[in-house]
Amino acid sequence: MDLATLLGILGGMGIIIGSIFMGGSAGTFINVPSLLIVCGGTVAVVLTRVTLGQFFSSFKVAMLAFMHKDFSATELITEAVELANVARKEGVLALEGRDIAHPFLKKGIDLCIDGHAPDVVNQMLERELDLHLEREEVGIKMFIAIGDAAPAMGMIGTLIGLVQMLSSMEDPKSIGPAMAVALLTTLYGAVIANAFAIPIAEKLKLISNEDRLNKMLILESVSAIQEGVNPRVLQQSLVAFLPENSREIAAEAPA
Amino acid sequence: MDLATLLGILGGMGIIIGSIFMGGSAGTFINVPSLLIVCGGTVAVVLTRVTLGQFFSSFKVAMLAFMHKDFSATELITEAVELANVARKEGVLALEGRDIAHPFLKKGIDLCIDGHAPDVVNQMLERELDLHLEREEVGIKMFIAIGDAAPAMGMIGTLIGLVQMLSSMEDPKSIGPAMAVALLTTLYGAVIANAFAIPIAEKLKLISNEDRLNKMLILESVSAIQEGVNPRVLQQSLVAFLPENSREIAAEAPA
Amino acid sequence: MDLATLLGILGGMGIIIGSIFMGGSAGTFINVPSLLIVCGGTVAVVLTRVTLGQFFSSFKVAMLAFMHKDFSATELITEAVELANVARKEGVLALEGRDIAHPFLKKGIDLCIDGHAPDVVNQMLERELDLHLEREEVGIKMFIAIGDAAPAMGMIGTLIGLVQMLSSMEDPKSIGPAMAVALLTTLYGAVIANAFAIPIAEKLKLISNEDRLNKMLILESVSAIQEGVNPRVLQQSLVAFLPENSREIAAEAPA
Amino acid sequence: MDLATLLGILGGMGIIIGSIFMGGSAGTFINVPSLLIVCGGTVAVVLTRVTLGQFFSSFKVAMLAFMHKDFSATELITEAVELANVARKEGVLALEGRDIAHPFLKKGIDLCIDGHAPDVVNQMLERELDLHLEREEVGIKMFIAIGDAAPAMGMIGTLIGLVQMLSSMEDPKSIGPAMAVALLTTLYGAVIANAFAIPIAEKLKLISNEDRLNKMLILESVSAIQEGVNPRVLQQSLVAFLPENSREIAAEAPA
Amino acid sequence: MDLATLLGILGGMGIIIGSIFMGGSAGTFINVPSLLIVCGGTVAVVLTRVTLGQFFSSFKVAMLAFMHKDFSATELITEAVELANVARKEGVLALEGRDIAHPFLKKGIDLCIDGHAPDVVNQMLERELDLHLEREEVGIKMFIAIGDAAPAMGMIGTLIGLVQMLSSMEDPKSIGPAMAVALLTTLYGAVIANAFAIPIAEKLKLISNEDRLNKMLILESVSAIQEGVNPRVLQQSLVAFLPENSREIAAEAPA
Repeated sequence: MDLATLLGILGGMGIIIGSIFMGGSAGTFINVPSLLIVCGGTVAVVLTRVTLGQFFSSFKVAMLAFMHKDFSATELITEAVELANVARKEGVLALEGRDIAHPFLKKGIDLCIDGHAPDVVNQMLERELDLHLEREEVGIKMFIAIGDAAPAMGMIGTLIGLVQMLSSMEDPKSIGPAMAVALLTTLYGAVIANAFAIPIAEKLKLISNEDRLNKMLILESVSAIQEGVNPRVLQQSLVAFLPENSREIAAEAPA
Repeated sequence: MDLATLLGILGGMGIIIGSIFMGGSAGTFINVPSLLIVCGGTVAVVLTRVTLGQFFSSFKVAMLAFMHKDFSATELITEAVELANVARKEGVLALEGRDIAHPFLKKGIDLCIDGHAPDVVNQMLERELDLHLEREEVGIKMFIAIGDAAPAMGMIGTLIGLVQMLSSMEDPKSIGPAMAVALLTTLYGAVIANAFAIPIAEKLKLISNEDRLNKMLILESVSAIQEGVNPRVLQQSLVAFLPENSREIAAEAPA
Repeated sequence: MDLATLLGILGGMGIIIGSIFMGGSAGTFINVPSLLIVCGGTVAVVLTRVTLGQFFSSFKVAMLAFMHKDFSATELITEAVELANVARKEGVLALEGRDIAHPFLKKGIDLCIDGHAPDVVNQMLERELDLHLEREEVGIKMFIAIGDAAPAMGMIGTLIGLVQMLSSMEDPKSIGPAMAVALLTTLYGAVIANAFAIPIAEKLKLISNEDRLNKMLILESVSAIQEGVNPRVLQQSLVAFLPENSREIAAEAPA
Repeated sequence: MDLATLLGILGGMGIIIGSIFMGGSAGTFINVPSLLIVCGGTVAVVLTRVTLGQFFSSFKVAMLAFMHKDFSATELITEAVELANVARKEGVLALEGRDIAHPFLKKGIDLCIDGHAPDVVNQMLERELDLHLEREEVGIKMFIAIGDAAPAMGMIGTLIGLVQMLSSMEDPKSIGPAMAVALLTTLYGAVIANAFAIPIAEKLKLISNEDRLNKMLILESVSAIQEGVNPRVLQQSLVAFLPENSREIAAEAPA
Repeated sequence: MDLATLLGILGGMGIIIGSIFMGGSAGTFINVPSLLIVCGGTVAVVLTRVTLGQFFSSFKVAMLAFMHKDFSATELITEAVELANVARKEGVLALEGRDIAHPFLKKGIDLCIDGHAPDVVNQMLERELDLHLEREEVGIKMFIAIGDAAPAMGMIGTLIGLVQMLSSMEDPKSIGPAMAVALLTTLYGAVIANAFAIPIAEKLKLISNEDRLNKMLILESVSAIQEGVNPRVLQQSLVAFLPENSREIAAEAPA
């Protein structure tokens, strides 16, 4: 589990709330109708953009940003090289029943064991990868939609507040507080978009990209294992997937 | 029919109108000249960007966002596997006269029955798909155009109101209400764009994409049926089009 | 000739001018120096971005948005099928001297009659198409440039007006009207960009795209005619270029 | 040399300066610290983005927008057809020592004379073209960087001015002039970006694109000359690079 | 080491700080809570978008903008031609143990010495290049994230300040200074984004691109060395990677 996103969200909210309390009158910043128009309006706009199914599954996608199990590429390489070692010595069928951590690697090895031709295995894994990426894309778009809709609803709320304030300016003293309330929706929209929705969308993009790199590494490993490539050659070739400073560790893995 | 879009539009409008009524003077928010300049101006700008034919067909496209008949991929797979089963046992011609729900699948099977070569069938279906996507694009662009034009006309209306107000500021008391009226066009433009046009454009994009995925699934099914592929193999290959959590259901379909 | 663009431009201008007259003091909205800085400045900026030749040819391109002769795809298909019919019965040379409406179709048939090999004809038509699209692009970019430059010059004009007003605020009564004048350039820029330049750029893009689709239809027709494809097969293949609801009409064309 | 860019820059500046003088107090618009922060800040930001070498070579690139020697495609075609004529009659070696105006055409012919194989010549010219485009890109990016940085520095300057003004508002009479000065940096930034940097960046893009088209024409000519293609065929094929209305002139060139 | 970025950052900050001191009251511009909300908020938002590992490695990437060791393409060509000379005369194995400055060139030559087939060497170097570019991309995105987050947090800070000021406007004299403080966060955000984060992101992009060009030059050199290409031919071919004005120098290198 990656702490950065949790720390970032809590830290950002903490800093914003802290700076409100430092200013003294924290109560001014809570206005239920303003919260309703921004949050409710954002939910409504996002709902318009998607199907009901996607809307409810988006919460699961959001959890991914916090719960994302990180398969380190180094471990994947070690595992792939071990499998290649076994497959070369005892044949691909000896891999049956082995405990394989990454589900995509497991799926690839299962396809090999089932006796599919190498190009069929490759094609099936590639399509699986493409469609998985397309489905992750839906989750990312949901958070981009929140990041678009929240500031827009915030602006609409502020405009409504300004029109109400301007059309009845009998008491000059009430102008300040009325405008403060009008600005609250813009503030809510900016906080939701910039400290929550946009960073999570970016994080999900990053997770999706890392996932893609890992799956490309697996794709290559499965091909090599099925073709009986020398495990040392496979290791040398997979190490290029790692950043330079983590290569030595992977290179010392038993082959 | 998908409820999300209808719920979203109604919910968004309800929240905006509700927050106006909560503020008391709802009458302030209705100004016929302001409505005319934003709505009329938006219609005029959109009309400039398209042909008359496209303009009038856009209403039909908008209905698509609400009425879109969702062909579930799971059902498509079940149907394709059944057809493959029949075709393998009794030949492709046995499919003649069968009741096929999805029109694109029907068209593909009809082409097979007509005896066209597999690559001709594939090429005709692919072009049909490409051109269909290009035509859907026109509908999407229409709503993007509304989403661009409405805030622009809102800004133009507000500028006109501000110039009128500023050039005759004899009575300080009239400044507030005059500015409230000037801001109304900006509000109308923001509501039209953000709570209506942009979300519908996004929904139509999503429908278009789902459509494309379904048609790619059909494209592959038709090829497999024509080539007499084993229905079990076809099913296994099509299941990759589904999200992971709906795969079991499809896998249990009779083959 | 397509009416939509003309109606749109006139309608948009009418609505804006109408809403100015409804406000009473239409004279306030005409300020010659403001007009000069926005229009003159936009012309200057656009001139900087292009060559003299392109600048003067842009007026011709603008007319295209209004005068664009619409070749309906249905008529093109009917014509192509007729030509294919003649070519199949009497040979390609029998097409010499025939009256062909679309100049690109005429050019393709002329190349066939000149006896060029099919791949040479195809390559020459394809390059013609590519270069034509690139030249249309120049016209589109000109209107995009106007749409960029007009609001920028409007903002520059307003800034100049604000600085002048702020630096000599002796008479408080003159502040309002001075600010009204300062805002006029922003208004002019917004109207030029949003009710004129951007919609015309979008319309030219649409024309260019329609043109491209028609020329791709012709490209395929010419290949088929030269290869002596069966006119019925050609018709069936071209019909996919049409939207679904106009297919029946084309299918009933004599073949 | 192309006058449009020079006329555009001078015209734009003239209109802006003229509208300042018409307002009376031109002296208000010159403020040395404001000029320093916008110009100096823009230089600093652009310097951060590039290497020292690129920074100093950017002045040379800017001159290109004004001094750009326009090789007309028509003249290039005439020259290429002449060379093809000579090459076909007397062999490629007869082109040695000929005076060839366009340096890229000269380089191509020299490579042919040196006896390189046609595909080697083609590959070398293509890489030359790719790398040339990539280097032009650097100059374009420099002006885009100025267009980004100037308004940003203008906004920073205005914010600094506003903070200074607001934190010491003892004398209400000084508020107007202080705000006028604060707005000056925004004005400077807008003028630098919109009337200078962005249009020049666009012009350099256009020159780069024209250059590319001319070099693609030359690439094709050199191939044809080396292969001894019939000059008439070459001419007919090159004419497609011209806009329709200049084709007759080129077609009348002696072949 | 490239001075431009260091000069640019220091110069930009110097100009901004200088213009603050010229205005007199520099103390007004330092406000610890405002600094906390902008800097702390930006760190939190960036942290949300990435993993902990990427966050801490970003400082190393930032140093790259200042410390980037520039391998001149001219020197690379000279070195490659020397190596080609030796390899042609004494065989590729004679290159063993030679001192090679650029690590990517060294890696390529080592692969040749290890006796891998030319296409294997090429494929390994190409993947190394692709993955290196993808990893540089992460560093660039980090600075783009700072450039996005800082102005957003600045706006949030200003909104909080405005709401606090407007909700308690008893003392009209405190309005000015309170608004000055509210604007400070916008100023901080604009400075961090425009004078620091965005230019460094652009510089890292430029370094990444230069790196790519150098590595493509090396890729071609290694292929040529392994295939025993004539060093003169290699030199002529590599010179196309140089800008025109530095070609003579490289051409005079001993071959």
